[in-house]
Amino acid sequence: MHAALSSPAALPTEPVLPATTAARVRHEAYRRKIVSAQEAVQWIRPGDTVAISGFASAGTPKAVTPALAEHIRRTRATGGDFRVNLLTGASVSVETERMLAEVDGIALRMPYQSEATARGAINAGRMDYVDIHLSHVAQQVWEGYYGKVDVAVVEISGITERGELIPATSIGNNKTWLDVAEKVILEVNSWVPAAMDGVHDVYYGTALPPHRKPIQLTDVEDRIGQPYFHIDPAKVVAVVETNRSDSASALTAPDATSKAIAGHVLDFFAHEVAAGRLPANTLLPLQSGVGNVANAVLAGLDSGPYRGLTCYSEVLQDGMLDLIKDGTVRFASATSLALSEAGLKEFVDNVDFYRDHIVLRPQEISNHPEIVRRLGIIAMNGMLEADIYGNVNSTHVMGTRIMNGIGGSGDFARNGYLSMFLSPSTAKNGAISSIVPMVPHVDHTEHDVQVLVTEQGLADLRGLSPRRRSRLVVNNCAHPDYRDELLDYIERAEAAPGAGQTPHLLGEAFSFHDRLQRTGTMRAS
Amino acid sequence: MHAALSSPAALPTEPVLPATTAARVRHEAYRRKIVSAQEAVQWIRPGDTVAISGFASAGTPKAVTPALAEHIRRTRATGGDFRVNLLTGASVSVETERMLAEVDGIALRMPYQSEATARGAINAGRMDYVDIHLSHVAQQVWEGYYGKVDVAVVEISGITERGELIPATSIGNNKTWLDVAEKVILEVNSWVPAAMDGVHDVYYGTALPPHRKPIQLTDVEDRIGQPYFHIDPAKVVAVVETNRSDSASALTAPDATSKAIAGHVLDFFAHEVAAGRLPANTLLPLQSGVGNVANAVLAGLDSGPYRGLTCYSEVLQDGMLDLIKDGTVRFASATSLALSEAGLKEFVDNVDFYRDHIVLRPQEISNHPEIVRRLGIIAMNGMLEADIYGNVNSTHVMGTRIMNGIGGSGDFARNGYLSMFLSPSTAKNGAISSIVPMVPHVDHTEHDVQVLVTEQGLADLRGLSPRRRSRLVVNNCAHPDYRDELLDYIERAEAAPGAGQTPHLLGEAFSFHDRLQRTGTMRAS
Repeated sequence: MHAALSSPAALPTEPVLPATTAARVRHEAYRRKIVSAQEAVQWIRPGDTVAISGFASAGTPKAVTPALAEHIRRTRATGGDFRVNLLTGASVSVETERMLAEVDGIALRMPYQSEATARGAINAGRMDYVDIHLSHVAQQVWEGYYGKVDVAVVEISGITERGELIPATSIGNNKTWLDVAEKVILEVNSWVPAAMDGVHDVYYGTALPPHRKPIQLTDVEDRIGQPYFHIDPAKVVAVVETNRSDSASALTAPDATSKAIAGHVLDFFAHEVAAGRLPANTLLPLQSGVGNVANAVLAGLDSGPYRGLTCYSEVLQDGMLDLIKDGTVRFASATSLALSEAGLKEFVDNVDFYRDHIVLRPQEISNHPEIVRRLGIIAMNGMLEADIYGNVNSTHVMGTRIMNGIGGSGDFARNGYLSMFLSPSTAKNGAISSIVPMVPHVDHTEHDVQVLVTEQGLADLRGLSPRRRSRLVVNNCAHPDYRDELLDYIERAEAAPGAGQTPHLLGEAFSFHDRLQRTGTMRAS
Repeated sequence: MHAALSSPAALPTEPVLPATTAARVRHEAYRRKIVSAQEAVQWIRPGDTVAISGFASAGTPKAVTPALAEHIRRTRATGGDFRVNLLTGASVSVETERMLAEVDGIALRMPYQSEATARGAINAGRMDYVDIHLSHVAQQVWEGYYGKVDVAVVEISGITERGELIPATSIGNNKTWLDVAEKVILEVNSWVPAAMDGVHDVYYGTALPPHRKPIQLTDVEDRIGQPYFHIDPAKVVAVVETNRSDSASALTAPDATSKAIAGHVLDFFAHEVAAGRLPANTLLPLQSGVGNVANAVLAGLDSGPYRGLTCYSEVLQDGMLDLIKDGTVRFASATSLALSEAGLKEFVDNVDFYRDHIVLRPQEISNHPEIVRRLGIIAMNGMLEADIYGNVNSTHVMGTRIMNGIGGSGDFARNGYLSMFLSPSTAKNGAISSIVPMVPHVDHTEHDVQVLVTEQGLADLRGLSPRRRSRLVVNNCAHPDYRDELLDYIERAEAAPGAGQTPHLLGEAFSFHDRLQRTGTMRAS
C-alpha cells in the first residue's frame, strides 16, 4: 500500500498517476483537487473554527495539521496574529496538539485534550477549553453553540469511485464535521490498510429535535448505517495525500497495582453473576477507559470464566485483539481503533476474521445515552480522586488545574447499568491520596457513582445512604496511610452540631489538598 | 362517585354491595379481598420493604399508610420494634411522610422526600435516605439493589371486569411495584374521577439488559402502552376501599421575583428562536419542576407568542389546564396529575377535551434518558445555589443537610437539549446568596448546566470555558449585594500562582458558607 509510480502503460497524454492515488482516490473530481498540505492550509484563516478528525491517537490529520502549525508560526513571525478554534473528536495525536499549542495557534479547544503544552496554555488562561460530554459534541455544534465551522480537516483512507469517503482508524465526529463545515480538506492516508474498508458503520439517522427517531440498535454488533461518509463535493477545497502512521504505542504489561484493581473488579463481576444480577459468561457490554488499569481489567477477563463478552466503548487497543482472537470477546464496538504497528499487522493479517468482530461508529453513537442505557453498559472509568461519599473528580488537580477532561466518562457513567470508577489509592509515591474528605471538583456526582475501586479493595455504594458509604469507601479503598485520618474526619463530621445527611466540616474539607499545597504531600507529618 | 349503599333491588341472598364497590371493584375475586385498612396492614411486618404509590401530592395510599403508622405506633408502645424500608415514586403526601416519620417507622427511604419530619430524621442520621435519579429507580429495584420488595401498597381508581387495575392520579413506579412485590395491597379510591380512565399510558416494554428494545415514542403525545396495570391476582392480599382527596393545593399567584425569573426565561426563548436554535411557536418539549418559579414561567408562556407547545414533565398542576384550554399547550405528558379540587373539577367537567391533551406515564418513561434525549427536552429546574463556574447544588443546605432530593432534575438536565437552573438570587431575606464561590455539594456538574437564571438575569454558559463563565454568572445572576465580593474572589483566584483552568482559592471557597454559619448571614459585615 506504499506510494509507487503508476505503470508505464498509462497513456502518454494523461498525467502520470501514482498507484497509490489510483487506488486511494478513485474519483477523478477529487484527484483534480490534490494539493500539498502547504497549499491546503491556505484555506484556513485567522479566527476560523477548524474541526479536525482524530480520536485518541487514531485518525488525526498528519500532513495538514503540521502545515497549519507552520503556517501559523510564519504568520506570527511577520507580526500577524493567527489563532483558530479547534474542534476534534477527543484527544488528537500528541504531536499535533503540541505543535499547534506551541505556536499559540489555538484560541478555543473542544471537547477533549491530553497533551502537556496545550494543558499548560489552558491552565494559564491563554487557551479557552470547553470540556463537555463527548456525546453532546455533535448536537451542540449542529445547533450552533460554537458558531459556524469554517474548515474541516478529515483524515480518510480513501475515496470510492462514487465519491464516498472511506473512514480511517477513527470516526469520532467526522460525519458531523463533513456535514457542517463550509470548506473541507480531505487527507487521504495510504498508511491506513485498505482492509479497514467495511469495518465502519456510519449512522446518518441522527437529527436535531423535533425530528429525532429511535436508533434501532439493540446489540453491540448491529450495523445500522453505512460504511462510508457522504460529502458534498462542492465543499471539498483540497485533497492531500499522506502515508503516515498513527502514533499509538504498544501496551505495557500491567503493574501490580493495576493487577490488584483488576482483581477486585473481576471478583465483583463474579459476585454479581452469583447474585443473579449479571448474566454468567457474557456479563453486559463493557466500556472501559484507556490506560494501565483498563488494560489490566481486560487482560484479567482473558483468564476468567468469560466467553462471548461484548464491548461497547470508545477506543480499542491491542489487548482487544487478543480477547477477540481467543473468543473471550465476541464483539467490540468503538469509535477509534488505536493499534500499535504490531497490533495493526495482526489486524490486517486476519482482517476477514476481525471484520466480523469489530465495528467503528461515530462517537455520537458510541456514547449515545439512548444506546448506553439500552445496552446496559458496565462503565469502568479512571478518576483522579473520589471523596468519602462517592463524588468523583476526573479532571481537575487541586480543583483548579485541568488534567485532561471528562471525555466520555459521563456519557457512560450516567446512563450505564453499572458505573464504576477505578484508580490506585495513591499517586506521586504515596504523597497524594485518591480518597479525600471532599473533592474540590466534581465531574461525577454521588448519584452517578456506584462502585469505587482501588488496589486496596472495592466499595459497592449501591443503595447506601451517604453515612453508610463513607466508612466503606475509606475502609475498602483508601490507602492505610490515610485511613485513620479519614475515619477521624468522618467521626468528627458526624458528631458536629446539625451534621446532616452528608456530614462534612467545611473548614477542613480540603485539608488534604491544603497540606499538599503547603508541604508537597497529603500525609500528616 | 361518592360511596352509597347499593340499590334495594339486590337479591336478598347476596351480600349487600355498595354502589361504589360495584362501580369500582368490577371483578368478583377482588371483591372477596376487600378488608379494612387495619386488617390490610397486618400483612406488613417489621423489616419489610414496602413500596407505595405516590408522586408529588398525587396518588399516595390514603387509608393504608395511616393505618400502618398506627400499627407501628401500637407495636412500639408494647415494646416491639417496627421499621420498614419505604420506596415510592417521588414525594408522597406530606401527611403520610410525616405520620410514618413521627412513629420512627422508616429505616430506609428511597428515592425522594420533601417533608420536614422525615428530613429531620434523615439529617440526624436516624433514617437512611437514598437520593437517586428517578429514572433509575425501577431498574435498580428490578435488579435487586434494594433486596426483595415484600409489600406493595398501590392506590388505583378501580378494577375492571377483567381484573385490570385502573391507575389513579399518578403512575410513578406503580407498574414496577405491582410487578416486583411479593404481596400487593390495593387501595381503590373512589374520589378519583372515573373519567380519569383512559388518561394513562402504561408501557410494559421495558426490561433489564440484555433484553431492552427501542422505546418507540417520538412525540410527546404518542401512546405506546395500555391504559391499565397488569397484576397477578394471587399476589393481591387485600383490597381497601377509600374515598379521600389528594392533598394538592391551588397555586398561588407568582410573586415579583418569580415573574422576573420567568421574564428572563421567556426573553431567552425568544432569543433562541430568533437565532434559529429553537422552533418558533412550538419551541421544544418543556420540562419544569414544581414551585413558584416554574409556575411563573408557565404563566408567562400564556402571554407569549406560543401556540401548540408541548410539555414532557413529571407533574402537571392547575396552571397546565389553562395553557391547554387556550391552545398555548397542545399536549402535556407527565407521571402525576396534582390538581387542586378546583382544578380537578375543571378537568372532570371537560374530561373528553383534556383526555386528548394529557397523558400520564410511568416515571420510567416520563424521565427516561432515551426519550429525554430524543425529544430534545428544555429542562427547567430549581436549585439551592450555583457556583461561579456553573456547578449546581440542588439538595444539600451548607453541603451537609438534605433539603429534598435530586428527583428527576438530573434525568432531564443530563440528557435534555437545554439544561436551565432557576432560583431567586437570594434567600432568607437576602441573608443567603444563591450564587457562591464554590458549592459545597454538587448535584449537577458544570458539564450539565447550560443556563443559570435568577431575577437579576440569565447567564448562558454554553460553549464557554470556566474563566469566561465566572464573571458572566456573577454579573448576570448574583444579587448586587454579593457581586463585588464574588468578583473580588474571581480576580484573586485568577491571580493566584498556578491558578489553572478553573481558578479557586480552596481556603476561601466556602467563605460565604462559613460566614453564614458563624453570623447567620452570608453578607460581609
